[in-house]
Amino acid sequence: MKKSALQIARAAYQPKLPVTLTGAVVAIEGEPTQSVADQEEIKQLFPNTYGLPELRFEKSGKQIAGKPVNVGVILSGGQAPGGHNVICGLFDGIKKINKDSRLYGFLMGPGGLVDHNYIELTADIIDEYRNTGGFDIIGSGRTKLEKQEQFDKGLEILKQLGISALVIIGGDDSNTNAAVLAEYYKNIGAGVQVIGCPKTIDGDLKNEVIEASFGFDTATKVYSELIGNIQRDCFSAKKYWHFIKLMGRSASHIALECALQTQPNVCIVSEEVEAKNQTLQDVVNYIADIVAKRAENGNNFGTVLIPEGLIEFIPAMKNLIAELNDLLAKTPDFAEWAPEKQREFVIANLSQNSATVYASLPAGVARQLTLDRDPHGNVQVSLIETEKLLSEMVGNRLKEMAKAGSYNGKFSPLHHFFGYEGRCAAPSNFDADYCYALGYNAAMLINAGVTGYMSSLRNLTKPSVQWLAGGIPISMMFNMERRHGEMKPVIQKALVRLEGTPFQRFAAKRDDWALNTQYVFPGPIQYFGPAEVCDMPTKTLQYEHLDK
Amino acid sequence: MKKSALQIARAAYQPKLPVTLTGAVVAIEGEPTQSVADQEEIKQLFPNTYGLPELRFEKSGKQIAGKPVNVGVILSGGQAPGGHNVICGLFDGIKKINKDSRLYGFLMGPGGLVDHNYIELTADIIDEYRNTGGFDIIGSGRTKLEKQEQFDKGLEILKQLGISALVIIGGDDSNTNAAVLAEYYKNIGAGVQVIGCPKTIDGDLKNEVIEASFGFDTATKVYSELIGNIQRDCFSAKKYWHFIKLMGRSASHIALECALQTQPNVCIVSEEVEAKNQTLQDVVNYIADIVAKRAENGNNFGTVLIPEGLIEFIPAMKNLIAELNDLLAKTPDFAEWAPEKQREFVIANLSQNSATVYASLPAGVARQLTLDRDPHGNVQVSLIETEKLLSEMVGNRLKEMAKAGSYNGKFSPLHHFFGYEGRCAAPSNFDADYCYALGYNAAMLINAGVTGYMSSLRNLTKPSVQWLAGGIPISMMFNMERRHGEMKPVIQKALVRLEGTPFQRFAAKRDDWALNTQYVFPGPIQYFGPAEVCDMPTKTLQYEHLDK
Repeated sequence: MKKSALQIARAAYQPKLPVTLTGAVVAIEGEPTQSVADQEEIKQLFPNTYGLPELRFEKSGKQIAGKPVNVGVILSGGQAPGGHNVICGLFDGIKKINKDSRLYGFLMGPGGLVDHNYIELTADIIDEYRNTGGFDIIGSGRTKLEKQEQFDKGLEILKQLGISALVIIGGDDSNTNAAVLAEYYKNIGAGVQVIGCPKTIDGDLKNEVIEASFGFDTATKVYSELIGNIQRDCFSAKKYWHFIKLMGRSASHIALECALQTQPNVCIVSEEVEAKNQTLQDVVNYIADIVAKRAENGNNFGTVLIPEGLIEFIPAMKNLIAELNDLLAKTPDFAEWAPEKQREFVIANLSQNSATVYASLPAGVARQLTLDRDPHGNVQVSLIETEKLLSEMVGNRLKEMAKAGSYNGKFSPLHHFFGYEGRCAAPSNFDADYCYALGYNAAMLINAGVTGYMSSLRNLTKPSVQWLAGGIPISMMFNMERRHGEMKPVIQKALVRLEGTPFQRFAAKRDDWALNTQYVFPGPIQYFGPAEVCDMPTKTLQYEHLDK
Repeated sequence: MKKSALQIARAAYQPKLPVTLTGAVVAIEGEPTQSVADQEEIKQLFPNTYGLPELRFEKSGKQIAGKPVNVGVILSGGQAPGGHNVICGLFDGIKKINKDSRLYGFLMGPGGLVDHNYIELTADIIDEYRNTGGFDIIGSGRTKLEKQEQFDKGLEILKQLGISALVIIGGDDSNTNAAVLAEYYKNIGAGVQVIGCPKTIDGDLKNEVIEASFGFDTATKVYSELIGNIQRDCFSAKKYWHFIKLMGRSASHIALECALQTQPNVCIVSEEVEAKNQTLQDVVNYIADIVAKRAENGNNFGTVLIPEGLIEFIPAMKNLIAELNDLLAKTPDFAEWAPEKQREFVIANLSQNSATVYASLPAGVARQLTLDRDPHGNVQVSLIETEKLLSEMVGNRLKEMAKAGSYNGKFSPLHHFFGYEGRCAAPSNFDADYCYALGYNAAMLINAGVTGYMSSLRNLTKPSVQWLAGGIPISMMFNMERRHGEMKPVIQKALVRLEGTPFQRFAAKRDDWALNTQYVFPGPIQYFGPAEVCDMPTKTLQYEHLDK
């Protein structure tokens, strides 16, 4: 493929490794660890990989030397900026250990391991992908590695290629599966280590010991660039309300980080909506009140950030959706009825609360809820255009307020949804460094002979040379959760903590931002400028460090 | 407002003026000019400002010196990156002429002149806005300056403030009005010069003598960043077709430039669709064929760029819309009928061709066409979500092809519309330099005592220090066109020329791009890196220079 001028210039960037990793390391063991909850159950499920110590690497002062090692790598799940650099760092790391080490990439996600689709990643391939966005070097996929047949099938190809370590780059689910795989291979004496790397733009794979997942930094900077541009437009034209939905699955980290970066008039945080047991109408009224107050000052414009997962955090909506799923499952010929009959039937057969919620939804959305269902017959919440739903309901609310004399303004909404625009951006300096170091550090964990660990770098608000390197036993992040009706050990998903500094800073400022227009325009990610422009980590990370 | 780190760093950027403008200039007059068409009529309409010579500035070798001058400035129409720099350049220019010169900004567009809303733009204000995006320094608006009452009302405030020159920063319509105003003030001896500056992201204000409008460079780079990111995602996940609509009003310059930058699988060019007299179904079939051919190679993913104005360029759609406008105007109670009755009525009362087109549209779009009408009762073409319309029709076409055995693939479309994301981005180095020079040069035109001129810089593919500066009589860009039933002198809108090199280069490559996935990932605008990354003008400009 033809390279852009920026790609060519950026290829020359050399990620800055932590000083610790610039020579051979010794692994210092901490105390044995415990899982965050359900210790007994998890200990039983992971007899070989539970209770392992945290590892901290220190410089040994010697040259790195080790036996050649064949390593496999997998990209799992949605794209995140920096994935290529994890692989580049891993490659450089195992080559540093021994120049005869080899790296194999399994193609299109975990399915590549099971189906034996792979390529060898040689220096000429690796060099094409340094500091680039995307996962296209080997592709990614969403196949879940969770069954013993898959593990055994995968082992065949690992054995065949002489692979003794597998690096899985993924989110919470993929790292959960990495730990299960590590336990299984350890248990059967397969002789294959499994190491995880924390990936996801959503920012929901982090905890006391993992400070951040890669990709969050770059993706939120791309979205903040766009939100800033829209806010400057909005402030120049002074005639539109922009409703901007942001990717991020359940958690609102992306919306919150973008709010901290750009200071919009409104940002909804799903976790707060749930904690306050708010209804959809509460959220609508909150926005409409701000629209009305701004209109009093002649400001008929503004911005509203909406996290992708909002609907599922609204208790009343959750109930409605659950009831709809039940009701429609019992009514197989529903789809063939006339729209009016459908609507009457639904309202007549829901609980009173849910019927009220259903009746309050704009007709198009209500209809979509009953019609667009997934192959299991479930309502597809992700298809709901929440940004349009909210703006339509806000518009209706404003009409009521106008009748009641409490609103006198103009309301012209526009809609945006940002997600795919940021997942494959070329990594920021932070993500380029972080990812390269995660991969390189994974090689050091392999060399240390451990399994069931996640590659870990800490102290991330400091310059990368000062980062602390080591490994965290994945099982220490586990708790038991119900999944598809069964209790399973899984990594706890990190939602926005309402008592944490990132949310608290936002909450302290939002009333000012709502009425006084305090937009910030971050502009696009810069790779070559002054450090304060190019190397700043996210506000989320900076504020979370204050909590430590 | 709080400034971002990039804004602070970028404020220090000093736009690079053409060498010609670094000292005092002499104005060299060319031959008298003629309008591009309808010379006799336009000469009669502009007795005082027709036939003026082009002006070229040359260095005089002396210090600039002149009398203090009070100047007014107006931002007109949609935002475009760099507008603030035009004003900064104008300010610096008139201060260079005489430090006692003063600059007044009329607020929220031409309406500010008529309604006497203004601020004085002093050095401390100007310095806050150097190299920033947006039009928020004085705001913009869409009031059209075209009536004598407005001119007279404006003159009152100009007289009151001692303003002897007015700079209007706008697109083709605003510059048309600037020329009419120049003629009027000249005719009545008002003693006010009027100078225009070519602004619009759409790229449709250019001609033999104006090489580019400002903002096009930055906006297309922002859109290309996003398209490139989406393409990298698309190529990594290999499962979606992204339908991406791009702003740009009638002309397809933005879509074409983005295609040249990013090499998508499909880019529709409205001007070609019209020239080939294609139907909507032709466009759909063209896309569906590419989807099917890619599926044969296992590539169930791709990107489609769609210019905002497409629908209005499809002759059959134009007829349909015209007939609908007539039909619905005669049927006042239409909106109250049941949807099925509406549909039957429309199909029964259109011409056969239009009825066929109407029946072929997805039901939602067809209904939207009859319901969402503007205050004059006209169908609102701009509300049609062309990206969804096309993907839905492509999906239907693929189902037919699958039945016929000519398609065997998966088609999952996603949709994007980029416009507001780019109009207020911080200007690229090109736009920062171009805009600053346009404003500074406008000051030199004022000092030269002329009126009815557009500020002009040429040789734009060269480094900015080598640009040629001067002025172009606006009347030479005029022709007569029917507007609201009346023949009016207007600047000819520049559409994509199918015989020009930009389109020809695209046309020569598109079949390769369609099937072989040749995506380019331009990445975000860089301000501080190597020249080949930061200072490249658009491909459109580079290729158009080859035609000269």
